[in-house]
Amino acid sequence: MIALDRKLFFRDFDLLANIGLDADGRMQRVAFSDSEQAARGFVEGRMRDYGLAVRRDPAGNSIGTLLGIESALRPIAIGSHTDSVPSGGRFDGALGVIGALGCAAALSTGGARLRHPLAVIDFAGEEATLSVGLLGSSAMAGSFDPAIVEREAWDGRAVGEHLRAGGLDPARIADAAIAPGSFAAYLELHIEQGAILEAHGFPLGVVDGIVGIRRYEITFIGYANHAGTTPMDSRRDALLLATPYVEAVRRIALAHRIVGTVGRIHLEPGAPNVIPGLAVLDAEIRGLDDAALDAAEGELEELANRCEASFARLARVDAVRSAAGPLSVLEATCAAAGVPYQRLSSGAGHDAMHMAALAPQAMLFVPSRGGISHSPDEFTEADSCALGAEVFLQALLRLDATLD
Amino acid sequence: MIALDRKLFFRDFDLLANIGLDADGRMQRVAFSDSEQAARGFVEGRMRDYGLAVRRDPAGNSIGTLLGIESALRPIAIGSHTDSVPSGGRFDGALGVIGALGCAAALSTGGARLRHPLAVIDFAGEEATLSVGLLGSSAMAGSFDPAIVEREAWDGRAVGEHLRAGGLDPARIADAAIAPGSFAAYLELHIEQGAILEAHGFPLGVVDGIVGIRRYEITFIGYANHAGTTPMDSRRDALLLATPYVEAVRRIALAHRIVGTVGRIHLEPGAPNVIPGLAVLDAEIRGLDDAALDAAEGELEELANRCEASFARLARVDAVRSAAGPLSVLEATCAAAGVPYQRLSSGAGHDAMHMAALAPQAMLFVPSRGGISHSPDEFTEADSCALGAEVFLQALLRLDATLD
Repeated sequence: MIALDRKLFFRDFDLLANIGLDADGRMQRVAFSDSEQAARGFVEGRMRDYGLAVRRDPAGNSIGTLLGIESALRPIAIGSHTDSVPSGGRFDGALGVIGALGCAAALSTGGARLRHPLAVIDFAGEEATLSVGLLGSSAMAGSFDPAIVEREAWDGRAVGEHLRAGGLDPARIADAAIAPGSFAAYLELHIEQGAILEAHGFPLGVVDGIVGIRRYEITFIGYANHAGTTPMDSRRDALLLATPYVEAVRRIALAHRIVGTVGRIHLEPGAPNVIPGLAVLDAEIRGLDDAALDAAEGELEELANRCEASFARLARVDAVRSAAGPLSVLEATCAAAGVPYQRLSSGAGHDAMHMAALAPQAMLFVPSRGGISHSPDEFTEADSCALGAEVFLQALLRLDATLD
Repeated sequence: MIALDRKLFFRDFDLLANIGLDADGRMQRVAFSDSEQAARGFVEGRMRDYGLAVRRDPAGNSIGTLLGIESALRPIAIGSHTDSVPSGGRFDGALGVIGALGCAAALSTGGARLRHPLAVIDFAGEEATLSVGLLGSSAMAGSFDPAIVEREAWDGRAVGEHLRAGGLDPARIADAAIAPGSFAAYLELHIEQGAILEAHGFPLGVVDGIVGIRRYEITFIGYANHAGTTPMDSRRDALLLATPYVEAVRRIALAHRIVGTVGRIHLEPGAPNVIPGLAVLDAEIRGLDDAALDAAEGELEELANRCEASFARLARVDAVRSAAGPLSVLEATCAAAGVPYQRLSSGAGHDAMHMAALAPQAMLFVPSRGGISHSPDEFTEADSCALGAEVFLQALLRLDATLD
């Protein structure tokens, strides 16, 4: 019986969690920083300890491979990421990497091999600190945009500078691309980063898809003027033009059963004694149904036109539905283990979105306390993490047995 | 006949306007800066040229005095300020100082004296660059708050540092206080800084009062959470709590015939992919009727309570009505000169607010093109400026003749 070594799993989790944790308990493991590179070094060391052959690809992804029994089969890939947002938490990404290492350790300890080769991946630059996120997985999937190198990263420095600090050649990132179908399947264990499982009391979530995301910038132009000397009937207050739109984003999202958020509003000049002359909203919508997103986008654009506001789409990432095969394996594993689970969509982006271009994929979620993520308060019970890793290992074994 | 020398008036105006003007045509004459001190030196030089005895008080106000014929009478004070906001215009304050100098020049050239002594004042620190405005006039009126010295000025340096740079002793500012009734009256010429005169086609405005100002900070507390993973019905979005309030500020202002503005909104964390957990509005109301301001404030506070928002009043300056005597003299002078005028309130604060504690006061306005002020685009036609100064001089003569 190949089983997760809980003690080893907790030890590895805690060792990784201590790399990049600041004095205030915040995870400072931003992609290509010294602490993130140290964490990556730790993960690569553990890969070797558990018998994997390790390489780092031109995008900085760490890939540990284990031969399979049937040499003709393509590898099954599992993994996640070790980088964090600035002042983040200990679970986002890390759980999936430690869970994948736990699978490798279980095989190694048991002296067992899968039918398929196994690839354990610690993806590079998952968090959107380098102007975009999913850097390593997008490069592996052949969709890396080289223009990103010149852009500004989270700290104002160029993305290229960060890449070089991580020992990468910015001109060679795209060389990390591999052919579609290079993997037989991809599975990822992750914290939910939402509160749906907690609210419904489910210990595990099987992800039926990762929502599509569209980001917009809507600009309302008024007349900046003195807040004391300008009569009410002579004003064109950009903030008052924008407030009904903020409410409409919620109304439209509800109507299409998606989520919609205005997370940022920028006023110019933004002084207490000046009528706002300009209001810029950053809005986004997310949903698993691209048709619903299309419809909502149409209404948002039409409303902006009616308000004489300019409407620009800043980003569009289409929804990615999980593949039927890995999805049903995850569900069957939960059922066999007697663990209640909920099917749910991921509202956050994951490396699995790009891996979907290379292989059938699905994800397994554990609950996040209070739905909190990207915060030092991010938390999942140790037992819950271990249960997720145990079911994940059993799903890997079931997938290995049933695939091909 | 004592008359304004237009040529001299324009020359002095242009000479002053060239002190502190940057290459982009923006006035950089912030209180106690080198350029402001140079402008003050120019004004004091002109005072002496026109026969005034000059002193600078402990608050940095420049006061030029001319003896009157009747030595028992208290002086009539006239003036304004030469400091500007950062990147301001050429007219705000400067017009009133040059207009007052024009009055002195007219008396000097005509070899004439008023019955009353005349005090021409260039007030210090009128603009709110030193954490508050009206620094010099508040000190003269005995209402200077010494706590200001420790506060942060517009550029992040301490106010005290700016005061010392202007040669002042911060501990002695309050010594500029003079007794109520020290002046027989105070008159000030100023640009409107609004568009009411322009909109109605009046060349001059007689100010019936300076509005009271109340500033508030209203804080809405929601739950910051992931914009993708948090269902719409599990959200408490602080921005959506705040938007109806922004609209209510306008509605309440209209109902009470005052003005009301939300000029700033601060969201936390303020990221496009996070539901706002905190929204802070900076709101202000202004009006000449303190009872209307009281009523509006009551409604704003009650609404904040109903929204479970915290409501803090940051500042309160009561309205100051012009004194009947100087007001009727300004109106009679306009009428005698055949110049149409409009009675209006000043929506902006002025040194006259503090001078009201020392003497009956009133102000004369000239139109501002487009109502624009605190901007390099601030503009009033030269003829309009000169007409204002001419009527101002005649009003001074009429006041001198009729007062006491």
